[in-house]
Amino acid sequence: MKLLKTLLPAAALVALPVMGMAQEAAAPTFDEVGPYIMTTLLFLMAGFLVFFMAAGFAMLEAGLVRSKNVAMQLTKNIALFSFAAIMYWLIGFNLMYPGDGWIIGGWVGPFFSQTVLDPVGVAAADAALDYASIGSDFFFQLVFVAATASIVSGAVAERIKLWPFLVFVIVLTGVMYPISGSWQWGGGWLSEMGFSDFAGSTVVHSVGGWAALAGVIVLGPRLGKYKDGKVNPIPGSNLALATLGTFILWLGWFGFNGGSQLAMGTVGDVSDVSRIFANTNMAAAAGAVTALIMTQVMYKKVDLTMVLNGALAGLVSITAEPLAPTLFGALWIGAVGGIIVVFAIPLLDKFKIDDVVGAIPVHLFAGIWGTIAVIFYGDASLVTQLVGIAAYGVFTFFGALILWTILKVTMGIRVSEEEEINGLDMAELGMEAYPEFSKS
Amino acid sequence: MKLLKTLLPAAALVALPVMGMAQEAAAPTFDEVGPYIMTTLLFLMAGFLVFFMAAGFAMLEAGLVRSKNVAMQLTKNIALFSFAAIMYWLIGFNLMYPGDGWIIGGWVGPFFSQTVLDPVGVAAADAALDYASIGSDFFFQLVFVAATASIVSGAVAERIKLWPFLVFVIVLTGVMYPISGSWQWGGGWLSEMGFSDFAGSTVVHSVGGWAALAGVIVLGPRLGKYKDGKVNPIPGSNLALATLGTFILWLGWFGFNGGSQLAMGTVGDVSDVSRIFANTNMAAAAGAVTALIMTQVMYKKVDLTMVLNGALAGLVSITAEPLAPTLFGALWIGAVGGIIVVFAIPLLDKFKIDDVVGAIPVHLFAGIWGTIAVIFYGDASLVTQLVGIAAYGVFTFFGALILWTILKVTMGIRVSEEEEINGLDMAELGMEAYPEFSKS
Amino acid sequence: MKLLKTLLPAAALVALPVMGMAQEAAAPTFDEVGPYIMTTLLFLMAGFLVFFMAAGFAMLEAGLVRSKNVAMQLTKNIALFSFAAIMYWLIGFNLMYPGDGWIIGGWVGPFFSQTVLDPVGVAAADAALDYASIGSDFFFQLVFVAATASIVSGAVAERIKLWPFLVFVIVLTGVMYPISGSWQWGGGWLSEMGFSDFAGSTVVHSVGGWAALAGVIVLGPRLGKYKDGKVNPIPGSNLALATLGTFILWLGWFGFNGGSQLAMGTVGDVSDVSRIFANTNMAAAAGAVTALIMTQVMYKKVDLTMVLNGALAGLVSITAEPLAPTLFGALWIGAVGGIIVVFAIPLLDKFKIDDVVGAIPVHLFAGIWGTIAVIFYGDASLVTQLVGIAAYGVFTFFGALILWTILKVTMGIRVSEEEEINGLDMAELGMEAYPEFSKS
Repeated sequence: MKLLKTLLPAAALVALPVMGMAQEAAAPTFDEVGPYIMTTLLFLMAGFLVFFMAAGFAMLEAGLVRSKNVAMQLTKNIALFSFAAIMYWLIGFNLMYPGDGWIIGGWVGPFFSQTVLDPVGVAAADAALDYASIGSDFFFQLVFVAATASIVSGAVAERIKLWPFLVFVIVLTGVMYPISGSWQWGGGWLSEMGFSDFAGSTVVHSVGGWAALAGVIVLGPRLGKYKDGKVNPIPGSNLALATLGTFILWLGWFGFNGGSQLAMGTVGDVSDVSRIFANTNMAAAAGAVTALIMTQVMYKKVDLTMVLNGALAGLVSITAEPLAPTLFGALWIGAVGGIIVVFAIPLLDKFKIDDVVGAIPVHLFAGIWGTIAVIFYGDASLVTQLVGIAAYGVFTFFGALILWTILKVTMGIRVSEEEEINGLDMAELGMEAYPEFSKS
Repeated sequence: MKLLKTLLPAAALVALPVMGMAQEAAAPTFDEVGPYIMTTLLFLMAGFLVFFMAAGFAMLEAGLVRSKNVAMQLTKNIALFSFAAIMYWLIGFNLMYPGDGWIIGGWVGPFFSQTVLDPVGVAAADAALDYASIGSDFFFQLVFVAATASIVSGAVAERIKLWPFLVFVIVLTGVMYPISGSWQWGGGWLSEMGFSDFAGSTVVHSVGGWAALAGVIVLGPRLGKYKDGKVNPIPGSNLALATLGTFILWLGWFGFNGGSQLAMGTVGDVSDVSRIFANTNMAAAAGAVTALIMTQVMYKKVDLTMVLNGALAGLVSITAEPLAPTLFGALWIGAVGGIIVVFAIPLLDKFKIDDVVGAIPVHLFAGIWGTIAVIFYGDASLVTQLVGIAAYGVFTFFGALILWTILKVTMGIRVSEEEEINGLDMAELGMEAYPEFSKS
Repeated sequence: MKLLKTLLPAAALVALPVMGMAQEAAAPTFDEVGPYIMTTLLFLMAGFLVFFMAAGFAMLEAGLVRSKNVAMQLTKNIALFSFAAIMYWLIGFNLMYPGDGWIIGGWVGPFFSQTVLDPVGVAAADAALDYASIGSDFFFQLVFVAATASIVSGAVAERIKLWPFLVFVIVLTGVMYPISGSWQWGGGWLSEMGFSDFAGSTVVHSVGGWAALAGVIVLGPRLGKYKDGKVNPIPGSNLALATLGTFILWLGWFGFNGGSQLAMGTVGDVSDVSRIFANTNMAAAAGAVTALIMTQVMYKKVDLTMVLNGALAGLVSITAEPLAPTLFGALWIGAVGGIIVVFAIPLLDKFKIDDVVGAIPVHLFAGIWGTIAVIFYGDASLVTQLVGIAAYGVFTFFGALILWTILKVTMGIRVSEEEEINGLDMAELGMEAYPEFSKS
């Protein structure tokens, strides 16, 4: 009864060397394994922050759709994260990172194999001491792919059917994103060419944006959005949730960009992660302030939704290079992101591209801007950056266009007019998000 | 004026060895204390994640009750956490972990003593270098007990009085949970018998579930729930909050399961924490997807509430053994959790057991399943697992049944019919959660 | 194609020493840099927790105002954070911490210079190995100043114009808070006198409270709040959001107080951070329980809003000294905070001081109490503590009074009666937070 806490078998075994009682010949000192532990911790910590972005997207989107479509938007968000998690294990991770080293081969072959984690209580000798544990890396990469899918769900809201949307997510997260991701982060041709995209302005955000753009075009606008040559604003039902979602995304972005340093075990790395935190925050603040001022100047009234999207655009803009810029650099890069959003949202309406939450301006346009802005602080060339942007654009936009079209022809992707008018919640789920709050 | 930041006395003292200016004979090197620091950090980080689950439960439950009972549900959630925190300090922690070692005796005796923390700026020589700081461990354990109490509050919602509920929470968190918890995690008889429950499918979740089941039986169903042989669904008032709550719980679960590794200072431990993160996420995803597919197949419409509970059931299912399974193991264990929920929620209604939020299927049934599933990946025996499940069930269910009955006879536990119809918020608090949103 | 993940240039360079392949003469061992890494990590982790308090304040305040003012309250919260982030970089940080050491001079002079971060991939020889990276420290300090501004926004809600409020925030966060902050945390006269304020009961919370008090006095009460000698309660529109906000603030406070240890690289420091977590949690719980019991006894009904403010008051109370007290000390210090709130909120109404969310009782009164309570556990003298409290009070209250008055005379700070009746959302933003939920 004088036990400490439960001494779990694994914990007991690994605790021994620490306690100086190990009989093994050459138990590693903490000095030798410290960097591995710190980088693994970085992935876990950044990973749970990025995971929480799923809640951020869900709240942002639930707040920006009408109440009759809120339950559907919530369903799509939790479902897309869940399918992405399974698909990325089943195919995506090993497809995106085909290097061997720490990845053990799977069932189907080197390119279509499931993720295999480090063994329980892995010995230091068997671990990738110069990197991190497989589980932490897999978890960190997995939450990124889910962000890509979340971007799509906001744009196509309020008229898409649930199941074709989920099929799209399955292909996007299991195949499309991993293939294009491997070009850069898997050590592929764009990486070899010198393309620079630190945390994914292009690899993650523009990919989500291109896939969304294709979807919105194939779907068409919501009923009543563009009528008699006029653009009818359709206000979101709950701006408190939209603001909460934005704050959660901002929080998660510290993990998104900070974790992309991919190391935390040296003075230089942990200080770089710090730079990234400070720059990421600055860019978001600058994007919000710019959108605030711009809407005041242009429309004589501040527009909260624009401010929220301004902050997000600032975040997307700094994502391609959150490390190298000074704080002033982060400020102006983020500010330009905010300006882009304020101009791009009405611009899309001119082309009758009905993006419900502003996902395309935020993630695609600001993502392109951020990828170009790398040239001001890094050593990337403009040409290479444009090649990368174009490569992701062509692959993802046309891939998504084909996929959305196939889905349209086979399953049908849009609810009926009557269902759209009554709301997707009753049509597809048979429930309402706010059943007691009467609608005005 | 050339000071760095405020040099706090304690910080200044302990900083000296780092700066190479220490006069003490044998200041420990970082190498020697690294594991202690990392494990303490694990408890702090996992602890704040699990703390946040209190917000998750509050939002989940506030979203699943009718708007007339929302303020009450919120009150119960913040109050139960607060009472649990005090009771666990006053009695629970030392009752649950009666080993001495790092716990210094208190006022009342070895079994009823208050938690005493490490002294300020504890010296390495006086610290449990093979474990972690007392404060971090106490904090981590404390947030677990609050989760148990939160489970109860959801099931008994919409008809229970505030104060008898809080008295129940005080006894549950101060005495009942710690006693049964000590059997396993305090090094008691179940631990010696080989019972295996890594992070508490049984010790935490089924205990909450049993206590809830007893409460629901003693209370009886809500008015109008079962009428003329029919089950009347009573939809929740705010599915956006319920979804937010689910995502927060999912986030917190990384701390719940990951922190239960109880160590992070070696390659093996931090890699195991990583495995746990990846498996926990996979089980939640699998539970959500299963519930999504099952409700589509069974009812021809996806049910968002079921998907949320499916994710939570996946999480509860993997909690008894989040480390040993492969990712595929986590997938199918979580998926079975999702199936259980879809079948169990209507089943309880057949027995007129009115569990408002589905806490009993999620935490009790999936908790039992998870505890049994350990046999597939660990070295626990089915018999021992069943003995453990039964021991917690008998002790908690009958203990709770007696306690609820005493409360019913003495204080009364249920509001009057009129109060229940008008809502607990006006009856017990005299305020409304949403005073301006008119009710349809 | 056998690459690991993207080997970013910086990451690759710094990873070399870890891999034992460094050619440099004296690459530091992990043993030497461990404390720097851990303290930097503390700032990053605590920093993102405190960042999230911005969402907590936004939700708390959005929940406690009427729905016609919710969008405005949200706008003010995201805007104040963004302006604070920019101002603190532009002036505040170097004004508050004028010591040189790790701060490199800027453009305008030693006292009005922009923050400059460590260079990318800073070498160990160039880093403040006895402290932490500049980026992490800047980020941590920045999120503190935003909290001060958030306190003001809640008190002056429902009648203040957006732009004068933001001008106030700009001066408060860029100049006023940094100047008074430097007295203590910048190593100024109060620090030299022995004033003790660990994490800012006075430096942060009372400063926000004094600025709020001045604003509320200059603004005057809301229309209809005090009429015919009676106090008319104006209930908040969404107590679920208010509760969520409270939980988020509670979560963030672990970073607020824990990070203020300013070090995590030794046994003593990480154990102290643990003490702080445990004490912070205890004080919050005690404040909530006290408010719960007091409102039951005094009004025969529990008041949820009071319970939320009780928890927050407990947190503010322990902030001046979260380390030294025992858990029992934290309990009674927090409990007194809860009592203060229950008495102070009606008291302010007697003086027709209309503080919408209770920010002045929570942050100013409990902040003063917490600063005095230091004498029971620390070695601060009552006289010095009172001198510090008075110095911050005189400087901030009169400074804010002058600033609010200037703003009133020049820009006007209050919306018209008609705009106030119709709600600030339509008047200042032209949008509603909940456009579809009809108002009762």
